Amino acid sequence: MLDNLKQPLIDVQSHADARGIALHKVGVKNVEVPIYVLQKDGRTQMVAASITISVDLPAEQKGTHMSRFVIQLAEKSTSKAFCYNLRDFLRETQQRLKSNTAHIEMNFRYFIHKEAPVTKIPAPVAYQCSFGASLTGEEDYKFVLGLEMPIATLCPCSKAISDYGAHNQRAIIRAKLALDTQSDYEVLWLEDLVKAFDECASCPIFPVLKREDEKYVTERAYDNPKFVEDVIRECVAVLQTYPSVTGYELEVEALESIHGHNAWAYQQEGDVTI
Amino acid sequence: MLDNLKQPLIDVQSHADARGIALHKVGVKNVEVPIYVLQKDGRTQMVAASITISVDLPAEQKGTHMSRFVIQLAEKSTSKAFCYNLRDFLRETQQRLKSNTAHIEMNFRYFIHKEAPVTKIPAPVAYQCSFGASLTGEEDYKFVLGLEMPIATLCPCSKAISDYGAHNQRAIIRAKLALDTQSDYEVLWLEDLVKAFDECASCPIFPVLKREDEKYVTERAYDNPKFVEDVIRECVAVLQTYPSVTGYELEVEALESIHGHNAWAYQQEGDVTI
Amino acid sequence: MLDNLKQPLIDVQSHADARGIALHKVGVKNVEVPIYVLQKDGRTQMVAASITISVDLPAEQKGTHMSRFVIQLAEKSTSKAFCYNLRDFLRETQQRLKSNTAHIEMNFRYFIHKEAPVTKIPAPVAYQCSFGASLTGEEDYKFVLGLEMPIATLCPCSKAISDYGAHNQRAIIRAKLALDTQSDYEVLWLEDLVKAFDECASCPIFPVLKREDEKYVTERAYDNPKFVEDVIRECVAVLQTYPSVTGYELEVEALESIHGHNAWAYQQEGDVTI
Amino acid sequence: MLDNLKQPLIDVQSHADARGIALHKVGVKNVEVPIYVLQKDGRTQMVAASITISVDLPAEQKGTHMSRFVIQLAEKSTSKAFCYNLRDFLRETQQRLKSNTAHIEMNFRYFIHKEAPVTKIPAPVAYQCSFGASLTGEEDYKFVLGLEMPIATLCPCSKAISDYGAHNQRAIIRAKLALDTQSDYEVLWLEDLVKAFDECASCPIFPVLKREDEKYVTERAYDNPKFVEDVIRECVAVLQTYPSVTGYELEVEALESIHGHNAWAYQQEGDVTI
Repeated sequence: MLDNLKQPLIDVQSHADARGIALHKVGVKNVEVPIYVLQKDGRTQMVAASITISVDLPAEQKGTHMSRFVIQLAEKSTSKAFCYNLRDFLRETQQRLKSNTAHIEMNFRYFIHKEAPVTKIPAPVAYQCSFGASLTGEEDYKFVLGLEMPIATLCPCSKAISDYGAHNQRAIIRAKLALDTQSDYEVLWLEDLVKAFDECASCPIFPVLKREDEKYVTERAYDNPKFVEDVIRECVAVLQTYPSVTGYELEVEALESIHGHNAWAYQQEGDVTI
Repeated sequence: MLDNLKQPLIDVQSHADARGIALHKVGVKNVEVPIYVLQKDGRTQMVAASITISVDLPAEQKGTHMSRFVIQLAEKSTSKAFCYNLRDFLRETQQRLKSNTAHIEMNFRYFIHKEAPVTKIPAPVAYQCSFGASLTGEEDYKFVLGLEMPIATLCPCSKAISDYGAHNQRAIIRAKLALDTQSDYEVLWLEDLVKAFDECASCPIFPVLKREDEKYVTERAYDNPKFVEDVIRECVAVLQTYPSVTGYELEVEALESIHGHNAWAYQQEGDVTI
Repeated sequence: MLDNLKQPLIDVQSHADARGIALHKVGVKNVEVPIYVLQKDGRTQMVAASITISVDLPAEQKGTHMSRFVIQLAEKSTSKAFCYNLRDFLRETQQRLKSNTAHIEMNFRYFIHKEAPVTKIPAPVAYQCSFGASLTGEEDYKFVLGLEMPIATLCPCSKAISDYGAHNQRAIIRAKLALDTQSDYEVLWLEDLVKAFDECASCPIFPVLKREDEKYVTERAYDNPKFVEDVIRECVAVLQTYPSVTGYELEVEALESIHGHNAWAYQQEGDVTI
Repeated sequence: MLDNLKQPLIDVQSHADARGIALHKVGVKNVEVPIYVLQKDGRTQMVAASITISVDLPAEQKGTHMSRFVIQLAEKSTSKAFCYNLRDFLRETQQRLKSNTAHIEMNFRYFIHKEAPVTKIPAPVAYQCSFGASLTGEEDYKFVLGLEMPIATLCPCSKAISDYGAHNQRAIIRAKLALDTQSDYEVLWLEDLVKAFDECASCPIFPVLKREDEKYVTERAYDNPKFVEDVIRECVAVLQTYPSVTGYELEVEALESIHGHNAWAYQQEGDVTI
């Protein structure tokens, strides 16, 4: 086997392909690496990311060289600045893979500390977040921010028709935001987005709630009944105040306490594909 | 290749194994076949089952013959009586695989019709159910029934401390019940188990709720506040009234509307392994 | 409470909304009902579907009436013709909900029988399938067919560079096909789509494989090495032969046996949103 | 509301319960916090853990005080020594909750660096790991280590009967190991367990494989054909060499490349419940 290795091994991926079909994205999915994410307070947080990275493939080439993606990730993802130089990273991906476009998507749990509303006891809450980016040629750069967060919703109909009580439940807001990468807008921090969307709920969720806090969230939810339709409209209104958001996809899904199925609302404006 | 096939192909699985380690269960997992389940009303319901089937393997044999499991399932699972002759099925599995024990577990969504509490509008609800069975030798037969069902819970603490409202949420009851297979007890119908556990909730869930129904379930939940501890204790009390239940594992998990994490209670008596 | 019920309960959903935001889709998600799917052989197969159904909501209305979706599904889904009259179903949804558009998506496991390649032993294989449809106004009707299927891929690079053997693995093809609903094309059967995509693999998967069959699939895969890039190009070529396909989204993901991550290829043409 | 808060809020959980049913475990599930795990090289790794923590509940008490679990976790989990003082942590849980037993289970992705077998290029691999522990009274302490890891298996039957090639696939080893907490054994490092189980595979998986490496793993797998039965027997043999392992539960599941279902082997010795 050693002798064998002294001769160059055949490069099948570089062979010609006769089918005449250029491919949009070829790459690797669910590569897991630790990465650093910058917090609003200026510190970095290490998270475990599941990453998809891909390039386009010209019609005349049989395959891409998949190990190069993982090697580049292993080399570059250890830098604290990795997530904030995705454009440079993708430029290098294009060069390593000899491609015209390159795409990356990173999914991770990100911790934000929240204080209980009355007792102010702090504890971390995990949010499912994502960074997606693509570069076509040298200039066409896109960036999409993703966030998935639990909230509470209390049903306005149930409150209005019942002599007492109102059904409420955990609900999930899912957002993908395409951000303007040309202009010089301020950073849209995940911390601020969570805070803004929390205000769209009947009540935010909290990690720690002592009795005083539980009384507060119970009454706050009852005072702010919201359908999924109400929540998504308020999230849309929030996004309309962000000049850097050029497109979005929004979903609100309530795990109804009275049904086995969920209530759902969906809104899309502009383009959030990378 | 055809010539080749005329000669018997080597049977590697039957080779001797020198490691001296007998194995408890070897087989196939997630074999999907349609099966018939008998409803309480005497009709049968076709469901899509995901099946695990296995046997023990003596220390001296290298491997089991896995295609035989799938062939037996394909042959026998089309019978309307299949689920109700699992003992005979496992006896045949022992014989086909030349084993001392045989185990099967089938997981499926099972539909039960429920009427809205006031308007009586009916619609199906899907429950995650399972049948597990094992046969050791000719006589030692075990059967375990599984059920996973959504309910609503309303927090007694939240109700007691708040001036109005009370947080509530979807919760899940998970049960595995080992049933006596020696005595001649009445069948424990999934329909009856769902009905009995529904009474342990702050309020059952329903597929259709018009406004009159929604008022009813809202007020019923508020009138019956229950912690997960309350729900599981009432489920335990239900099981204590079933003479055929020789062991159980119970879980109640509430998808708290005020937190991102869940409240949880767990109880086990006797043996529910197959 | 009974007196109360004699008076009409307030209809909060019909209240006015002042935020001026029309919503694209509001409805219910993961409603589970049994439905009938027509097989290519003319028989029907009952499957357990998880359904999302939604309508648009005008800016001036606070909420939609979600129970109406579930009632319509409970009433209509029991018909053997339900899946083949989705346009009429959605027209009725528009009318019941007083909306301009209506959308439905149904996800289910669908069984197709497959014979072992040499011994011809038959057994069922489950495929994840979906029907999606939307109707805007009276005329703008869209239909999207979804299929997710396991295949085997054998790596051309591994085969070319190794003295013996080649790594292979289970891979998944995921397809969404927008179908022309105006012209009078022949039905695109799931059975035929599975058969066509199976030919794009290094080797199809089978539920039962006796030794003669296992020899056949092993050698067939070794004789047909394919990257995910090869598989997706051949799937694209298949779709190009279907005149009724007006758009598609295709993914091939290989659960690489040599890595913990997956190889992945993605292609999209036209519009597959409903 | 403020006046209200000045008076003590009622403590419903401490109320008496008349049902006479003591509960085994009540607590919180899926609390997510970042924790530090000690690596074999002496450095610590921050991981995102999903935690279940519970206590027993006497028959005469209505409920437990769930916020105390989350507060204790928020206070203590930030210490680098947290995972290595679980006994003290659980002792404190007993005291805070006034319980006889306390249990904790933490699930997390843990990164281990692996070098390519020939080119020696290093990159991280993520493994699903868990720490479980319980304390009953002051002395009865249990600890269970969990690991889930991908490997490659190549089928001995397929190799033996085919003129060329052999089907292979990604497989998963799942292990729960009860460790002796009384004696003074050496630490069982996750790094060493992964290395030992990797030797039980047809070939380990690697994050980066250049062509020379891919040739190596292809031929190594072909030279080491293993059924799931072979892999699990070798894992059992590994565990038999660890004096600190007092019980285990082992599973090997192969995502067969030739089927849609999986091959599976299961073995249990001793007690791995906490």
